[in-house]
Amino acid sequence: MSKEIPYKIYLSEQEMPKAWFDLRPTMKNKPAPMLNPATMKPVTEEDLRPVFCDEMIKQELNETESYIPIPQGVMDFYKMYRPSPVVRAYCLEKALGTPAHIYYKFEGSNTSGSHKLNSAAAQVYYAKQQGIKKLTTETGAGQWGTALSMAAAFYGVDLCVYMVKVSAEQKPQRREVMRTYGAKVIPSPSDTTEAGRKILEMFPGTGGSLGCAISEAVEVAAADSNTKYVLGSVLNHVLLHQSVIGLETKKALEKYDVYPDIVIGCAGGGSNLGGLCAPFMADKINNIRNPEIIAVEPASCPSLTRGKYAYDFGDTGKMTPLMKMYTLGSGFMPASNHAGGLRYHGMNTVLSQLYADGLLKARSYEQTKVFDAAVMFARIEGILPAPESSHAIRCAIDEALECKKTDETKNILFGLTGTGYFDMKAYEQYNNKTMSDSVPTDADLKKGFASLPEIK
Amino acid sequence: MSKEIPYKIYLSEQEMPKAWFDLRPTMKNKPAPMLNPATMKPVTEEDLRPVFCDEMIKQELNETESYIPIPQGVMDFYKMYRPSPVVRAYCLEKALGTPAHIYYKFEGSNTSGSHKLNSAAAQVYYAKQQGIKKLTTETGAGQWGTALSMAAAFYGVDLCVYMVKVSAEQKPQRREVMRTYGAKVIPSPSDTTEAGRKILEMFPGTGGSLGCAISEAVEVAAADSNTKYVLGSVLNHVLLHQSVIGLETKKALEKYDVYPDIVIGCAGGGSNLGGLCAPFMADKINNIRNPEIIAVEPASCPSLTRGKYAYDFGDTGKMTPLMKMYTLGSGFMPASNHAGGLRYHGMNTVLSQLYADGLLKARSYEQTKVFDAAVMFARIEGILPAPESSHAIRCAIDEALECKKTDETKNILFGLTGTGYFDMKAYEQYNNKTMSDSVPTDADLKKGFASLPEIK
Repeated sequence: MSKEIPYKIYLSEQEMPKAWFDLRPTMKNKPAPMLNPATMKPVTEEDLRPVFCDEMIKQELNETESYIPIPQGVMDFYKMYRPSPVVRAYCLEKALGTPAHIYYKFEGSNTSGSHKLNSAAAQVYYAKQQGIKKLTTETGAGQWGTALSMAAAFYGVDLCVYMVKVSAEQKPQRREVMRTYGAKVIPSPSDTTEAGRKILEMFPGTGGSLGCAISEAVEVAAADSNTKYVLGSVLNHVLLHQSVIGLETKKALEKYDVYPDIVIGCAGGGSNLGGLCAPFMADKINNIRNPEIIAVEPASCPSLTRGKYAYDFGDTGKMTPLMKMYTLGSGFMPASNHAGGLRYHGMNTVLSQLYADGLLKARSYEQTKVFDAAVMFARIEGILPAPESSHAIRCAIDEALECKKTDETKNILFGLTGTGYFDMKAYEQYNNKTMSDSVPTDADLKKGFASLPEIK
Repeated sequence: MSKEIPYKIYLSEQEMPKAWFDLRPTMKNKPAPMLNPATMKPVTEEDLRPVFCDEMIKQELNETESYIPIPQGVMDFYKMYRPSPVVRAYCLEKALGTPAHIYYKFEGSNTSGSHKLNSAAAQVYYAKQQGIKKLTTETGAGQWGTALSMAAAFYGVDLCVYMVKVSAEQKPQRREVMRTYGAKVIPSPSDTTEAGRKILEMFPGTGGSLGCAISEAVEVAAADSNTKYVLGSVLNHVLLHQSVIGLETKKALEKYDVYPDIVIGCAGGGSNLGGLCAPFMADKINNIRNPEIIAVEPASCPSLTRGKYAYDFGDTGKMTPLMKMYTLGSGFMPASNHAGGLRYHGMNTVLSQLYADGLLKARSYEQTKVFDAAVMFARIEGILPAPESSHAIRCAIDEALECKKTDETKNILFGLTGTGYFDMKAYEQYNNKTMSDSVPTDADLKKGFASLPEIK
């Protein structure tokens, strides 16, 4: 028999991946290129330069390099909180009475509380190298803003975070962590930008939205050559950085001759799932292995399971390039009772193409079912999960229970992207049984689709 | 030269300590025994049985066993979040420009956010073994209540937490984590106990105190044979469980031939420091090594640095046995602007005796200086520390700066007991520059000492 598997599998520092992995060169059907909405031609480096750092643009438009070396300056940061453990969920398996073996890659044991730090470190590092003095970004649930604040403090770059106003008010703790790391946090919409002032005029007293916060952050970056904009998900360079999750996971499991039959990740913009599944998806594409790879999304924001595969803008303000993706339309807004992140209207273009090709599956869950799983997991495995990550937990538990029915010993791997310490308002609703579900009606979806751009 | 030391030193699961270590048999001068205040004789097992679990009493009164095996049922829980890493603070060393090598044992990467889980797991396990159906406890800052909730959920024992009312109001997130783990959280003082009702009558609208919450929790346990009371610090069986911190640390450092010249721990009741320093103190007592061991306490609650070594009650209500310890008097209350824990009036009896014997040093810091260190550490080392732990950070930084002056390459080890994710109110005060210090005047201390019992 194989070696006894410990509760936590850690790689040594020497075993940490030295390069990120880009899935695109491996793909048979490539994702459609980003288009410049003015010319309807594929975007060029020049198109993106006013807003993004040079190296991010190069990585975003990469088509040929499967491996991009991780610079030493990023490795030094990674070593403070990586490698993260692959955990064998022995206690959960026992509680479920399943013959399945459940593994999860835990990305939450850093102060940002999520995997977002993997890309934040890289993006701030490259900005610093380029001599950029200041970065802007937006944050909704707050994980990305927190991660970026930590990286900005470490590398010594100024940071201004536009935080969706309602979130800033509901999560003063998140705001305060960012401030502690030296970031300026501005509730959005604000009077500091043209976009913000316009929205405040049109909708006085609005709680803001991610789309509006993006517009404010982009405006500030576009107006100043020393300032660049950074984004925490959706884009391909973000998925590239997150591949460190999948690479570490594969290597850790290989030590014990384990290969996952099922790989599960929650999916909002796709950064976590894209990073976790990358090396496994490569094996699948190359017919080396055939794992089932599942994206789990909230029923209240079902871009893969109910969206259209079409060119769409990345933001509500329709300022970004067009991306071909599964989308609910940039005008779609998930119901306000939806807790946590995973509220983006579209899905990363690589994952969208893989889904269109049948290589990636998708599933959606309503949030009370997700919190059932979250609380069960917290009590059994001792980690209070983020609402986002709990979508993956729900799916993993269901797959494990299916194995119980069929008496199959499958290896189930899921990404535990983060902790829920700053999401206790949502847990409180669940504990008080005042949490509700919301599934968009066909009419809601139709309204969202109406915001899709007409492509000639 | 010796092996290159990684950022994080992890033991393997097989290398985890199999037994806890009790320092008492090693001590030349033993700590004075607990006294029954009614008889003024050393307490017996029978005296403690109405309130505590049998095994806890046995461990509390242990005099001869240096090693107590960790039961498999506790090991199974420990394996979910232990071993915890010993971290080499490379980035902090560089930022300080010190020749010193700084190490910290990080106990905060579990959902309770602190080392408290080490004793919570043990105490709930033994209660379950004894057939106890329900546990009661008190919590102030909330780390202990959270840890105990996690353990109670895991082992399936009911838990009722009396949470200091002002803390329950200021930290609804902490309360909600406990509820998520299934605990009943009652703001104290409450009308559920005689003690609570009496205090509410005397001080309507009071925000409560730890002393009062203890009285409520003990009353409930004493009234029901199926219910026992558990405590998260001060007592010797708690220090015993926390020895896992020191044992892991010593073993991890030995792998790289490192021995600390200085061992630093924050000290409230003493559980973390007692656990961290135990094996190093044993070396010191046995003249094998001579590390400097430093307890760091808040200037606002300076039990070691300004207290008296005397028999005192453990609680404000004067219901507990008498313990000979450094104490400010059970009637002492730290100023209300003091943030976080470390607000207990006394110090564990073992640490008190070691301090009296000159084997343990002590130092106190005002809280703005502590938060200076906390924020610096967060930005450089990427972990936002608990206010309590930041006392140790402050001291470690000062020692490292001293090494810079003297050009000495000392090995400095400190305990990073927890994270500050639920302490953002205090950080907010610091960020807004509204945080103030408070040092008790001699008159304040005199008032506290007046509450000391008269011993004939």
